Amino acid sequence: MADISQTLRGKFITFEGTEGTGKTTQIQCLEEYLHSRGLNVLVTREPGGTRAGEQVRTVLLEQTEVPLDARTELLLMFAARAQHLAEIIYPALRDGAWVLCDRFTDASYAYQGGGRGISDSDIKEIESVVHPGFQPDLTIVLTCALETAMQRVSSRGKKDRFERESQDFFERVHAAYLKLAGRDPKRFAVINTEPEIEEVASRIRQTVDSRFSL
Amino acid sequence: MADISQTLRGKFITFEGTEGTGKTTQIQCLEEYLHSRGLNVLVTREPGGTRAGEQVRTVLLEQTEVPLDARTELLLMFAARAQHLAEIIYPALRDGAWVLCDRFTDASYAYQGGGRGISDSDIKEIESVVHPGFQPDLTIVLTCALETAMQRVSSRGKKDRFERESQDFFERVHAAYLKLAGRDPKRFAVINTEPEIEEVASRIRQTVDSRFSL
Repeated sequence: MADISQTLRGKFITFEGTEGTGKTTQIQCLEEYLHSRGLNVLVTREPGGTRAGEQVRTVLLEQTEVPLDARTELLLMFAARAQHLAEIIYPALRDGAWVLCDRFTDASYAYQGGGRGISDSDIKEIESVVHPGFQPDLTIVLTCALETAMQRVSSRGKKDRFERESQDFFERVHAAYLKLAGRDPKRFAVINTEPEIEEVASRIRQTVDSRFSL
Repeated sequence: MADISQTLRGKFITFEGTEGTGKTTQIQCLEEYLHSRGLNVLVTREPGGTRAGEQVRTVLLEQTEVPLDARTELLLMFAARAQHLAEIIYPALRDGAWVLCDRFTDASYAYQGGGRGISDSDIKEIESVVHPGFQPDLTIVLTCALETAMQRVSSRGKKDRFERESQDFFERVHAAYLKLAGRDPKRFAVINTEPEIEEVASRIRQTVDSRFSL
């Protein structure tokens, strides 16, 4: 597994951020842009993207009387991720596709780490089993004011288990994302999504253009 | 988590072995015996025992067009286990119960390790995140000839994904169990289930009596 990256000709771009930061919209904009450049693009999301992953997503997001243990949540996320890598991400990257993924391992550090208090070293141990030596080529962290995010989420109607979390939880997740980005500025780009959609999309295109010399 | 064992007054006995070695029957016999001694007994099984665990069990055991990645399987097992520990096993042990569990972490070494080829060190990393410092007080490995096991399994009718595995797979799992038991004879007891049920049950009772000075 250690040198799996050697066989991957495509590019792996992940989008991160709390709910309501505009990931879905911006992924779609970037997908259209990359298509217009004649590139082969695959859009996918975590947890999910595979049959087993979607089933795991159901376990994670549904309401239950007994709360899920933080470690159960972490392991389910990585279980879905292992299948997602084997079934979708690695094959697409081997084919030379540009894979745009809505959340990846950084989300485990942000949500199960920052949000639920699991230590970074515990998460790192599991990461090292699931995708040793493999990281996104670029990770775009979308941020906006908590009020903006809340407003966007509430306009969607029904909330799932994550979206009902407290404001404090969101702030810890947000802080964890910024910490991750600060540690590895070469891989991360933090982009504010308060401006108009097209303005944000343009900044993302510029980031992608310069990162990959498009 | 490291000293969780300090707060657990009960006893944790796990049963291991390939399909068809008689675990279900022998767990029931030991349960009756411990009850007759006036002890508080809880019988449970992996993967499962909790709502989230039973859902994970469904993902693991059902047939799918795309096979589950070995790492996905490993992480799903440990996800179910984390929930099982938090929701059922630790609370029962805190209450002083004798918990009889049909499979636990040794099964991950045997099935995902011996069976599917994941390295022991990868499994150990995940184990160290899920239950650092916690091990069964006694692990009973049931063994019998492959032909006996196959005969018992085929008499049950419908086979799940694990039960359809090849003979070679079962032999690797069996060998992995014996290796585990050989490494830690203080915790493990290997018991042959070829004799009559009552004879086997009697040997298990003797093992339990002497291990816990009943």
